[in-house]
Amino acid sequence: MPRYKLTIEYDGSPFVGWQRQETGRSVQEALEDAAERLCGTPTRVHGAGRTDTGVHATGQVAHVDFVRDWRADTVRDAMNAHMRPEPVAILAAERVPDEFDARHSARARHYLYRIINRRAPLALDQVAWRVPQALDVDAMNAGARHLLGKHDFTTFRAAQCQAKSPLRTLDRLDVTRDGEVIAVTASARSFLHNQVRSMVGTLVEVGIGRWQPDDVAAALAARSRPACGPVAPSAGLILTRVDYEES
Amino acid sequence: MPRYKLTIEYDGSPFVGWQRQETGRSVQEALEDAAERLCGTPTRVHGAGRTDTGVHATGQVAHVDFVRDWRADTVRDAMNAHMRPEPVAILAAERVPDEFDARHSARARHYLYRIINRRAPLALDQVAWRVPQALDVDAMNAGARHLLGKHDFTTFRAAQCQAKSPLRTLDRLDVTRDGEVIAVTASARSFLHNQVRSMVGTLVEVGIGRWQPDDVAAALAARSRPACGPVAPSAGLILTRVDYEES
Repeated sequence: MPRYKLTIEYDGSPFVGWQRQETGRSVQEALEDAAERLCGTPTRVHGAGRTDTGVHATGQVAHVDFVRDWRADTVRDAMNAHMRPEPVAILAAERVPDEFDARHSARARHYLYRIINRRAPLALDQVAWRVPQALDVDAMNAGARHLLGKHDFTTFRAAQCQAKSPLRTLDRLDVTRDGEVIAVTASARSFLHNQVRSMVGTLVEVGIGRWQPDDVAAALAARSRPACGPVAPSAGLILTRVDYEES
Repeated sequence: MPRYKLTIEYDGSPFVGWQRQETGRSVQEALEDAAERLCGTPTRVHGAGRTDTGVHATGQVAHVDFVRDWRADTVRDAMNAHMRPEPVAILAAERVPDEFDARHSARARHYLYRIINRRAPLALDQVAWRVPQALDVDAMNAGARHLLGKHDFTTFRAAQCQAKSPLRTLDRLDVTRDGEVIAVTASARSFLHNQVRSMVGTLVEVGIGRWQPDDVAAALAARSRPACGPVAPSAGLILTRVDYEES
């Protein structure tokens, strides 16, 4: 059966997360339902990353095997037609070799965490965490630098994280400000469960001034979940891109 | 009674527009209800611009007279507390002289119209008009230049527009692209009813290639509503700023 790579955008707020759950509607289920309506047969959709409840994506990737050899653009348009009215869109579809696996072939994952730094509630742009206290972006970057490279990220992963090893290599963790919007960009081959939100929540403690930048190094060295700052809310997190070997 | 200038953000989608209507919930009504909860007495809120059904704002301005002389920050925070859970936020409050009138003192109004130029539906960012056909931004700018300056904008105003004169001076109409997002920025002392959406819908005809840029000049010269292109949908329009004489 021909295999397709799908690039997917979604609003995570109405979903229990990427992965199928008994507890509610998942993005995976929405996609598999659309695929079944398209093919007339149950069809599995395999994602690159299991985003949590409420986490968004503008560049999630999945692979799916279809019963027929459709043109890639037909797959994109037909999947989108069958998806309505759920807030999930196929941005692109592409024929890929059978060896392509959205999860295992991924070389890097990129996340954006959006903070809106102001007193007023968010009325129009809700894809963000509103932080009312003034944030010092330079201090946040100084804290972030301690997390770059290969480390045991036990402090920054959820208690229920199922990864065998807490070792990960963080390639990028940048904090930039544009007016009231603060963007935290994180890149790694893979992340632990809740790792980005745990790092962002901790960096916000630094930005507020409750923590010093060096306290981030101490928290990392503690290799202990209670040493982490508060976990940032899911509404600000977006999976923006997954990279593959020249696909 | 002390007068306050309010700078307001809202998601227009659940509202019938700025102005109080019998037909549904308006932004003005949401604000006046919050003001009444704050003051204990019916309180009128006067806006700078009457945005239409579904039109958003990140910089609407209004003035309001309160029964008490509160600190400006208190007004902002208390109004926001009384507004919940409606998608309307007071970004700033400021004490102004009694002569300040949000509508009549305004010197310029600025709108942003957002187009997302792609085949796929919009899943995450819905504050936009999705246009699937490839848009030529240079052609759109060439068309836009014909509208700059002082003109009779009869072609570009709604049949139900209540302004006495169709003459307006358009100070800015720029089209820029950043990836799939196309931004149309429009500035004038004031606009006619549906003027921005009528101009944007017409420029999109140029961008698609159905119209030539010079056809915009002909449509303007026709001074006739039927000469206008289709009116762009409200979801992409945002009132971003209102300027006053050094306030």
